[in-house]
Amino acid sequence: MAGKEIEKLTKLISKLPSLGTRSSRRIVLQLLKKKEVLLLPLIEALNEVAANVKTCEICGNYDTQSPCSVCASDKRENGIICVVQDVADLWAMERVSLFKGKYHVLGGVLSALDGIAPEDLNIESLLCRVRKDDVKEVVLALPATVDGQITSHYLLSRLREEDVRVTTLAQGIPMGAELDYMDEGTLQLALNSRRQL
Amino acid sequence: MAGKEIEKLTKLISKLPSLGTRSSRRIVLQLLKKKEVLLLPLIEALNEVAANVKTCEICGNYDTQSPCSVCASDKRENGIICVVQDVADLWAMERVSLFKGKYHVLGGVLSALDGIAPEDLNIESLLCRVRKDDVKEVVLALPATVDGQITSHYLLSRLREEDVRVTTLAQGIPMGAELDYMDEGTLQLALNSRRQL
Repeated sequence: MAGKEIEKLTKLISKLPSLGTRSSRRIVLQLLKKKEVLLLPLIEALNEVAANVKTCEICGNYDTQSPCSVCASDKRENGIICVVQDVADLWAMERVSLFKGKYHVLGGVLSALDGIAPEDLNIESLLCRVRKDDVKEVVLALPATVDGQITSHYLLSRLREEDVRVTTLAQGIPMGAELDYMDEGTLQLALNSRRQL
Repeated sequence: MAGKEIEKLTKLISKLPSLGTRSSRRIVLQLLKKKEVLLLPLIEALNEVAANVKTCEICGNYDTQSPCSVCASDKRENGIICVVQDVADLWAMERVSLFKGKYHVLGGVLSALDGIAPEDLNIESLLCRVRKDDVKEVVLALPATVDGQITSHYLLSRLREEDVRVTTLAQGIPMGAELDYMDEGTLQLALNSRRQL
């Protein structure tokens, strides 16, 4: 087919999430076609990210500075920490721009299947922050999966020893959803947690 | 959210075919997470492609050499040229590895809507090759769309002036297809072009 450089690039791109061989090939062709406006700027942007972006030493966010802009901001409350599984979840929360506290990225959730134990997650650093920064509330914003809920319960048991309020995101029917299409678990949950109007 | 370097990269990646903002964000996170095994090798591979890959001066293929490996090969027949719309189509033909002639990339198809006229396509260079290389057959492998077929007819009228056989890919029911799911146009075509067993 074409040179081995193209083969190599296609293979690498196909490893990225949500891409396969076919879309990867299309992307490589697009990059070659638009060398000046796409390929070269992409190389530059990747280089900049590779050179400048680091993991925040406090919360685990990605930013060009460490502590990251959230941790360094004096407009955000120190007394409330939102615990998320991943940086992607932190960004999702930030897009809502409702939460005005700080974050803590766990780096995963406990999983017997994948062999992820408490010491594999950033749990000690969380407890450290709770003690040191006089934190009043920890919001657990972990996924609503079995592993996520087990992790929430584990964190709750660890945080009970500290003088801190532990909360979690509300569960129920998502906005715009038809009841008809909801699974039974969610319906049960929403019924049990019903609130007075 | 995160630094402007990350924003910039996310925006660039979301411009690639088959990617939107959401998948682009996931890709950037994956790249940051796997800096050593993904981000840095990707930068290297992109740099290599940007530095080494060029357009073949004869057929329009992408390769590290010009003339490309297909045009330069002495194992391939000079007397038969397959005309394709795009390099992607050339690669698709090469994956079948049945065709043993040379290629010619048109760079698009005629389109009144997009304002693409004959002079915008690599048609003159095709006629040149046909005359110069003593070509016996031109296989038109253009898309089976209206624009593709119009382009095929245009090329046929231009090639009639030369002493060359012009063929086109067979049309009909694709392999593995259920008749039930075929459009009427394809069924009509397949019936009209039916062959004796």
